[in-house]
Amino acid sequence: MHPIQTAYDDLTQRLSELTTLDEIEGLLQWDQEVTMPPGAAASRGRQVATLGVVRHERATAAELGRLLHQLEDDQQLDPLQRANVREARRAYERVHNVPSELVRRWGEATVRAHGSWIAARKASDFSLFADDLAELVALARARAAAIDPRRPAYEVLIDAFEPGMTMKKLDDVFAQLRDFLVPFLARIRAQPGVDTTMIAADVPEAEQEAVGRALAETLGYDFAHGRMDTAVHPFCGGAGAADVRITTRYQRDRFQQSLLAVVHETGHAMYEQGRDRSLADQPVSMARSMGVHESQSLLWETQVARSTAFWQGRLPWLRGRYPFLADVAVETFVSALNSVNFNNEIRVEADEVTYPLHVILRYELERDLFSGALEVRDLPAAWNARTKAWLGVEPSSDATGVLQDIHWCIGAFGYFPSYTLGALYAAQLYAAAGRAVPDLADRIAAGDFGALRDWLRAHVHQPGSRWETDELIRRATGTALDPSWYMAHIERRYGRLYGLTVGSAATEG
Amino acid sequence: MHPIQTAYDDLTQRLSELTTLDEIEGLLQWDQEVTMPPGAAASRGRQVATLGVVRHERATAAELGRLLHQLEDDQQLDPLQRANVREARRAYERVHNVPSELVRRWGEATVRAHGSWIAARKASDFSLFADDLAELVALARARAAAIDPRRPAYEVLIDAFEPGMTMKKLDDVFAQLRDFLVPFLARIRAQPGVDTTMIAADVPEAEQEAVGRALAETLGYDFAHGRMDTAVHPFCGGAGAADVRITTRYQRDRFQQSLLAVVHETGHAMYEQGRDRSLADQPVSMARSMGVHESQSLLWETQVARSTAFWQGRLPWLRGRYPFLADVAVETFVSALNSVNFNNEIRVEADEVTYPLHVILRYELERDLFSGALEVRDLPAAWNARTKAWLGVEPSSDATGVLQDIHWCIGAFGYFPSYTLGALYAAQLYAAAGRAVPDLADRIAAGDFGALRDWLRAHVHQPGSRWETDELIRRATGTALDPSWYMAHIERRYGRLYGLTVGSAATEG
Repeated sequence: MHPIQTAYDDLTQRLSELTTLDEIEGLLQWDQEVTMPPGAAASRGRQVATLGVVRHERATAAELGRLLHQLEDDQQLDPLQRANVREARRAYERVHNVPSELVRRWGEATVRAHGSWIAARKASDFSLFADDLAELVALARARAAAIDPRRPAYEVLIDAFEPGMTMKKLDDVFAQLRDFLVPFLARIRAQPGVDTTMIAADVPEAEQEAVGRALAETLGYDFAHGRMDTAVHPFCGGAGAADVRITTRYQRDRFQQSLLAVVHETGHAMYEQGRDRSLADQPVSMARSMGVHESQSLLWETQVARSTAFWQGRLPWLRGRYPFLADVAVETFVSALNSVNFNNEIRVEADEVTYPLHVILRYELERDLFSGALEVRDLPAAWNARTKAWLGVEPSSDATGVLQDIHWCIGAFGYFPSYTLGALYAAQLYAAAGRAVPDLADRIAAGDFGALRDWLRAHVHQPGSRWETDELIRRATGTALDPSWYMAHIERRYGRLYGLTVGSAATEG
Repeated sequence: MHPIQTAYDDLTQRLSELTTLDEIEGLLQWDQEVTMPPGAAASRGRQVATLGVVRHERATAAELGRLLHQLEDDQQLDPLQRANVREARRAYERVHNVPSELVRRWGEATVRAHGSWIAARKASDFSLFADDLAELVALARARAAAIDPRRPAYEVLIDAFEPGMTMKKLDDVFAQLRDFLVPFLARIRAQPGVDTTMIAADVPEAEQEAVGRALAETLGYDFAHGRMDTAVHPFCGGAGAADVRITTRYQRDRFQQSLLAVVHETGHAMYEQGRDRSLADQPVSMARSMGVHESQSLLWETQVARSTAFWQGRLPWLRGRYPFLADVAVETFVSALNSVNFNNEIRVEADEVTYPLHVILRYELERDLFSGALEVRDLPAAWNARTKAWLGVEPSSDATGVLQDIHWCIGAFGYFPSYTLGALYAAQLYAAAGRAVPDLADRIAAGDFGALRDWLRAHVHQPGSRWETDELIRRATGTALDPSWYMAHIERRYGRLYGLTVGSAATEG
């Protein structure tokens, strides 16, 4: 065998082993959220930590580094293999370049910060969390410098979730979005509210579950390689591409919440289930980024399952299960699903129109924290000012304001942008799918989701990480990331819903 | 710190890590039986294999061997520490001494044999399995010689499940047992059968499950550190002493099957839950042997939950859930539970009286295979002859005879004796508990299981592997293994049930 090929085979074997260890960790996490008895929390922590030590040893092995160095940009490898080496090298540098002393301090600091965040949130007093947060920011800066000293720290942190994304691009895209959404939201707020009472009913969990399962299966979720359970926070997890599990939760008096959550997680799950299995779980076959992942959940949830076309087909079916919807018209039903939840300071309760503002707010604050333009102690004031200015509501306390998210105390700086990148990609991809399948809305109204699924599989799921994100999006949609698809979608759907005169009065997507 | 203490601490850290990896494997196995989607079988196999590689590397690490050598019989260690080193060394030698080439061949041969066993069983033709079985026997002999060349191969294999047990002891005990059971069974067979129709009813799964959960909790199973689910084969597994999970299965027309199976698995589970947690999951805290494990399940199932005293207390409660039992008296109910299932060639359907004969049959055949006194090709004839002579029934085919068990095709030679050792230990331990707690039967009739549980915890669960099995049993019961407790129990319970005149007509235990 050719030496390059031998080295490449050795590399893929090591990478497959890392994937397998990640799958095992995925099961430990899923079990922890879904099936683990309450008294096992401490031993589960030990199990996850032990597996983490094993994984870290193997992910930073000198021989792995040597192989990656030898194979980097080797022209004897085909493009797919080169992409695989590129992705493996990116992951290697993120773990290998960080000194173990820093890893240790980081681990300790996040445990401490998580504790003080809980205490601060309970007391609704940011000052109890401020020092630990400041330490985490300092350590995150040091980690970023260790990983790549040539780029701004915050951009290096974002890179963990959005490889290749730049702050310049985010600044530009988010500014456009903010400048569109803030006045648009103000116009909505001036309109009468949408009536949602006609879909309010008490629906037992078992019935909601049956509807959720049927819907997931209809959209294309493969239950032979997955399962659906209940968890406190809905998520998509499991143990690899052959075992992709979704969870949801049920509120008896708000069936639509679980229904849309199931569709959302089904979107995530179909991305994982649709990956190119012939690539044997190599990095190149993995989901491109958190933002692209979120694009798949949001595409199915917002572009599809909140649309009129979707409910033209599905509402008659749902009425068969929920007789209280017998007299609710499609338009009325869709309006109720999409009513905007303004005057709300909580991100996780936000809707399509307000969610990006929550994200941009966090992005700007994180950016300014890492640039030094903002001090930790000034966060609450900056938070409240932006919330008031953009969302029109003053946080009633630190607990429901600056302390509402878990992300900072676990050190997940740079994660927030992915949520909104997902929304933008979803709109852009859905529009591209609509151009490729001209009768897409009719198919969706007819309950045929195969054409959309196939298009996503070919353009997003199967390519995986073969190309950088920009290239993936360009190949799928014809252009790089472009927020105007999202803005047009919001204008169309919510302009119509709230009776606003908007630029283009196109049909609702 | 003293160098010995440093070395001991280093050792315990390595051993804890091995335990943690075993716990993770336990979760993978549990999930595979209970929650895993069907399409994930291949990837689960890869996950288990990868974890096995990691575990094997660490379990055979040169530094671990060096520490064990340094610490062996070190008088500066306290007795508990020395016992821990002894147990760790036993485990180390079992994996370290086997050459990796043999491990590889063994792995391949078991996969092959499992395949041919399935085919042979389907065709009911032993000859399709014979060659692969012969190869496994040869490889098992080589493994045994690698582990300990000084002892007979079969004894070394038994040692994996019953550390310290000798063939001399088993020959002696099993001969006594066989010579008692074969004529006793013949006498039962001459009596009229026991009527079981009065407890036959159709009981929905959900009701059986509620009864099983309530019963497990009443006996002392801790649901905060466990859970109960459905699986094809009932088992007790999970992810360590803080996470001990049981499963059962339901037959709508035989509620007693699941009920007793739950009690059986609860016995296993309480052993694991009752281990000395202050020993931080070191080998010395682990269950002593498979036989002792089985003693805990069988003690609760047969000595307790098949007894008259137990149902004096529980039947009124059960009648509240199962009204069809309203007119069934305690004696009648207990008789129906304990009717002997003779004319049955299948081990897993056997009862207290016939089960040991199935086991002794397999023990004798395995022993003769490994000594060379029996050839693989002569197994079916030897099997059928013993079945006919001892159980009074001729196997109707290879499938229901010599091919009925999975053990040989997965290479689990030497495992069968543990089942019957468990039954013997159970009778001996229960008698000792009765001497220590003189009003034990009254307590059990009153629904108070705490005294029995506490006694087992103190004498079996907490000691774990501190002493060799003989010593454990001697400390708990006053003598080494003695089958007469079991024989007396069988004589009492089944002599009374079938109206036989027996030596001692003591009250039923």
